[in-house]
Order: sequence, then C-alpha cells, then structure tokens
Amino acid sequence: MEFSDYIPIWGKLTPQQQAAIVQSASARTVPKGTVIQRSGEECVGMLLVRSGQLRSYLLSDDGREITLYRLFERDVCLFSASCLLQSIQFDVTIEAEKETELWLIPAAVAGEIIKESAPAANYINELMASHFSEVMWLVEQILWKSFDKRLAAFLLEESALEGSTTLAITHETIGKHLGTAREVVTRMLRYFQNEGLVELNRGHVILTDERRLRALQNA
Amino acid sequence: MEFSDYIPIWGKLTPQQQAAIVQSASARTVPKGTVIQRSGEECVGMLLVRSGQLRSYLLSDDGREITLYRLFERDVCLFSASCLLQSIQFDVTIEAEKETELWLIPAAVAGEIIKESAPAANYINELMASHFSEVMWLVEQILWKSFDKRLAAFLLEESALEGSTTLAITHETIGKHLGTAREVVTRMLRYFQNEGLVELNRGHVILTDERRLRALQNA
Repeated sequence: MEFSDYIPIWGKLTPQQQAAIVQSASARTVPKGTVIQRSGEECVGMLLVRSGQLRSYLLSDDGREITLYRLFERDVCLFSASCLLQSIQFDVTIEAEKETELWLIPAAVAGEIIKESAPAANYINELMASHFSEVMWLVEQILWKSFDKRLAAFLLEESALEGSTTLAITHETIGKHLGTAREVVTRMLRYFQNEGLVELNRGHVILTDERRLRALQNA
Repeated sequence: MEFSDYIPIWGKLTPQQQAAIVQSASARTVPKGTVIQRSGEECVGMLLVRSGQLRSYLLSDDGREITLYRLFERDVCLFSASCLLQSIQFDVTIEAEKETELWLIPAAVAGEIIKESAPAANYINELMASHFSEVMWLVEQILWKSFDKRLAAFLLEESALEGSTTLAITHETIGKHLGTAREVVTRMLRYFQNEGLVELNRGHVILTDERRLRALQNA
C-alpha cells in the first residue's frame, strides 16, 4: 500500500501525520450497487479509490436523480467527508457503479491534519475546485445544451467506460443520470434509432454510428 | 480600515502576512454596472465588499446569463481570484449591481499567504464550500423547481434587497438572472398579474400580494 500514489502531498506531511493516516485507514471492497454515502447521513470519511468506479449524484425529495461526477482509480472523494467543511450545505449520494476497492480515512483523522497542515488544506482546496468545476460544467449543460446533445455525450461516455458499443442500461437509468424523465429518454432514443445512430434491443442500447453521435455531441 | 472585520482568521495570520495584506490592498469604489471580472480574463484578486452589491453570473457563448450568487457587505469574493486554484475550470463574470466600495487584495499576495498558512487555506476552503453550496442549490432549483416558484422567489428576494415592493426591472433582466428567455418571463408575469400577485406598469413590477407569492415559492 502506497499512500503516496493517491495523495500527491504525502511527502509534505509530517511523519506523525503520515502515521495517523496509515494507522487509521481501512481497506474496503464494496460490491457494485452499494450506497457508500446516503444523502443526509453522517459523513463516512475520505475515500481513496484503488480500483472500480463510484458515482456521486443528487437525489430530490421525490426520488429523482442527476449524476454530478464519477470517481475512478486514484481519485479521492471529498464529499464523503463533507463534515470537514462547515459551509457545505448540500448532500450528495455516493454509490459504487462497479465493484470498488478503496481506502477509507476517517473524517476525524483527515480533519485534524487539514487543520494543521497548509499543504493538506490546499490539496483539499484543489479537490473541491475540481468537483466544483464538474458541477459548473453540468449547470452549463443543463441550461444551454439541448437534450439530444447531452444524451449523445452520455452514450459515448458510457461506451468509453464500458469499453463496448453495447450498453446494458435501461431508459430509466439514463434518465437518472441526466436528471430527466424516462419518457423523455425513450422518445429521444427512438429518434436516434430512426436516424441510425443507435439500435434498441432487449434492454440494450447499441451505438451504431459513433462518428455521427460525436458530431451531434459537439454540434 | 479594519481587515479583522472582513477576514475572520486575521488574528491567526503572522504579523508579516498581515503587513503584506495591509500594504498591498487597495480601496476602490466601482459605479453600478461595472464589470469587475470578465469571463475568460485574468484574475483580479480577492475582493472584500465594504458596501454595495456584486453579482456573480455565468455567461454562455451566445450571451445568455444566469445569476450564481450575490455578494454583500463583508462578503469576500473568491472567484475574482480563481487563478489561486489550478483546478478551477470555469469562468464567472462579476458585476457591481449597486455602487460598491471594496478592498482588492492582489492574487499574488493572497496566493503566497494561502500557500504558507493552514488557517488561511482552510478559510478559502470554507469560502469555496459556501459558493459551491449556493451553486448546488441553484442546480436543484433548475432541475426540480418549476419556473413559477423560481420567479416568485426571485421577486421576493429582489423586493427584500431593494426594500420596496416596486421593482424597476425589465423582463429581459429577470430572464438573465434566472437563465430563461424574456418571453417565458413575460408569459409568467402576465399570469401572475391575472392572479393578482403583481401589477405590471411601465417597466415596473409591483408586488401586490407578497403573502401569496411566498406561499407559491414554498409550495
């Protein structure tokens, strides 16, 4: 286990701080579908993703969802430790989209270090700025990009993540990622099918013309 | 001039850091309508608002706007110094909505202090978390609140800010705050007028039933 691979400022921590992390961190493997952090619940701690894939999303009172960002190998999840920041007034839910191996650093340990260490606090700043940038990108998408472009971008991204042009994904799940009703997704996917961009087949979406999907995404 | 009134961690800075701020900060008065920070331009520095009102907004390529948050007396504007954070990948525009008096701390001076001082870096963390929370609130509004509720909330907020139920504001300006086309605003305001919630009169919107507007906002 090499924390220095996950925490770029590892070398700027004191030996005591490094020891506190090593002694308190626990390794976990969470199965696909596990909700690691539930909206409104106490905070879990900082998560260091060793392998797998996490999804961070907003959940409305009536059960609607929208994906905020994803975390992959070597990413660090800050909002699983949002109690570290008093001014965070929102809740995100974090779920394992694939079986995920991670290190968990308890919030209390991380909090102590951040309070004392300027490099650690600045590292948290950069992590938050990076999450913030992803959310601002999303705001611009929702406000100013039409749904056909967002759907094309989503299908291409999923295809890249899965390493396949055949996606086993329901219209409802796509709707949850994009903050849209299932019916809207179905209508647009049928339009895509008529245009020869995808093929819909027994719970699968097959990308049949990636070049034109890409052109649509960037239009 | 008392920086300790604006910067809660003032007492945790070293005498050298305090002196660097005092010596480099400049007082400015910007007239209403001044764009202090333009999207895509170099960063100005940290702004401490002494009086007045600033608006931070997103601007699309084709000139559409949406208000992200506002800054009032004693607020500190971080995104006028977004160059302090490498991971910030978005641009906001900052404009004076009223004549505004402010202190400007150059980004280079603030950056040096944040790098060295854990309290300063943690303070920046809290500032960013608070801006982040406002943007997340906005995301939820856009996704999950219908436009009538957002418009009612906006009119009530404006009325509170102006200390008057008569607002000198065009439908186009309201649209810019809410990220919506002028026509959509006009249609909804006419509906509000029919319902007896507002009166539309020569470039003014007059709130005639605040109680019901509040009920609508919270519905």
